[in-house]
Amino acid sequence: MSETTPPQVVAILGLGLIGGSAGMALRRRFPAAAVIGWDRSPEACARAQERGAIDRTAAQAAQAAREAEIVLLAVPVQSVIPLLEEIVPHLRPDAVVTDTGSVKRRIAQQATQIYGGGFIGGHPMAGAVESGIGAASPNLFEGAPWILTPTPQTDEETTAAVSSLIERIGAVPRYCDPETHDRWIAALSHLPHLLAYGLAQTAFLQVSEEGRACAAGSFRDGARVAKSSPAFWTEIMLDNRDALLSSLEMVQGWLEKARISLESRDAEALYRLLEQAHAAHRRFPPR
Amino acid sequence: MSETTPPQVVAILGLGLIGGSAGMALRRRFPAAAVIGWDRSPEACARAQERGAIDRTAAQAAQAAREAEIVLLAVPVQSVIPLLEEIVPHLRPDAVVTDTGSVKRRIAQQATQIYGGGFIGGHPMAGAVESGIGAASPNLFEGAPWILTPTPQTDEETTAAVSSLIERIGAVPRYCDPETHDRWIAALSHLPHLLAYGLAQTAFLQVSEEGRACAAGSFRDGARVAKSSPAFWTEIMLDNRDALLSSLEMVQGWLEKARISLESRDAEALYRLLEQAHAAHRRFPPR
Repeated sequence: MSETTPPQVVAILGLGLIGGSAGMALRRRFPAAAVIGWDRSPEACARAQERGAIDRTAAQAAQAAREAEIVLLAVPVQSVIPLLEEIVPHLRPDAVVTDTGSVKRRIAQQATQIYGGGFIGGHPMAGAVESGIGAASPNLFEGAPWILTPTPQTDEETTAAVSSLIERIGAVPRYCDPETHDRWIAALSHLPHLLAYGLAQTAFLQVSEEGRACAAGSFRDGARVAKSSPAFWTEIMLDNRDALLSSLEMVQGWLEKARISLESRDAEALYRLLEQAHAAHRRFPPR
Repeated sequence: MSETTPPQVVAILGLGLIGGSAGMALRRRFPAAAVIGWDRSPEACARAQERGAIDRTAAQAAQAAREAEIVLLAVPVQSVIPLLEEIVPHLRPDAVVTDTGSVKRRIAQQATQIYGGGFIGGHPMAGAVESGIGAASPNLFEGAPWILTPTPQTDEETTAAVSSLIERIGAVPRYCDPETHDRWIAALSHLPHLLAYGLAQTAFLQVSEEGRACAAGSFRDGARVAKSSPAFWTEIMLDNRDALLSSLEMVQGWLEKARISLESRDAEALYRLLEQAHAAHRRFPPR
């Protein structure tokens, strides 16, 4: 398979927000391919078909995957490897497999052991605090970065086929190794989630019901992702434990410096901390 | 002056985002009143007039304030008391004065010593990361809470007149004592700002330029207010030091519990922390 020959059959295993949105985008922009979907929940399968995210469904994951040239594993991080093990014996010899999990080092390592150069890890940088097929949208990935994490073992054809699929979905492929991905994402996603949960808990304890009606934009934006599923995020954070600990300890150190400057009423030290952080923030490109 | 007799003359001292937006809203919704504006910057005065935020300007703050039945001090927290001292000898005997600063305990205490029952502290819960008259909008306060902090010394007429003015601007008055305000706002505004700055600095140090292009919604929202002015926020945070330290220490304790659960791979403890915070977040009313 090459970048210029589009796949005839794509399997999407896991029909939640990510898998459902990928199917909807793919079918809308690329009606020639058949999209076969599977989810462990029959309701999600039915709903995905209703919403136009898949052409047809299958009772078993292996059955859904066996004709596919590309298989997208859009399941929670702890389910990626068990699902890959389940389908591998049934795959076409030329099938390529990718996933959408938010941690990549462990997954890339284990998946490469199981499926060699035919696997490449992936992570779309788009999401929503709501989950499930009901929240899926064909525009979720429009213009969004979608990180791919090839390793020295990854076949070039695998990278090319998955890159091309991602572009068809509307996303922009970006590449880095799995370790770099995990460090980036710890700081850009896992840490912001942890801070949002911590902020929500603290503000709740400090502010009465009457005062909670006064929450302005800085709180609402800062705590927004505390709306996300605690079970889902517990799993991800533990899976990216090392990188998240490194980011968390760095922000803890920063907050302690801020605390000391407040406690000692050291305006210059506090200003320096805020000014540096303000300059750092300007180094992020606008959305 | 009573709630039912609208003022003929309102003075706005400080023509930045807040003062400018208040003037624009007032003139648009209440064309009968004359709005006299003053700012230490002659450019801001000229721009405020151009943008329709004021009817006329004056060379000195005292001159702008002397005819006014209501005076709005929309200057940074460290300038409120000096400005009040400057204008008090020139005010009409029945004039009421309010401010828009983000800390209230110190200001209410000092302002009451200077101007007695004619002063009431205020704090509009609306803003923008951009500052200055250029960012002002007549809709900034539309439906937003505007906290007023009467004390036992505040005259009822003062509270009534300022409440009525705020409603004319489109905001919703809410009431609490100055200490409660400072505790609420430490958790709902000052702490989210501190966390945003800390997140921006941490992510900048952990993520290369290439990775910064991959920042998704949780980082962008979490760090958004790190775009705000470091000088402005240094002043506010130090002015609300005690309440902010209390919120900061609480979130530091929470983050340390999260760190320990990660380090010891204690999924149940981490889940419990996130689940509690998630439930806390649901107790904040939707915007």
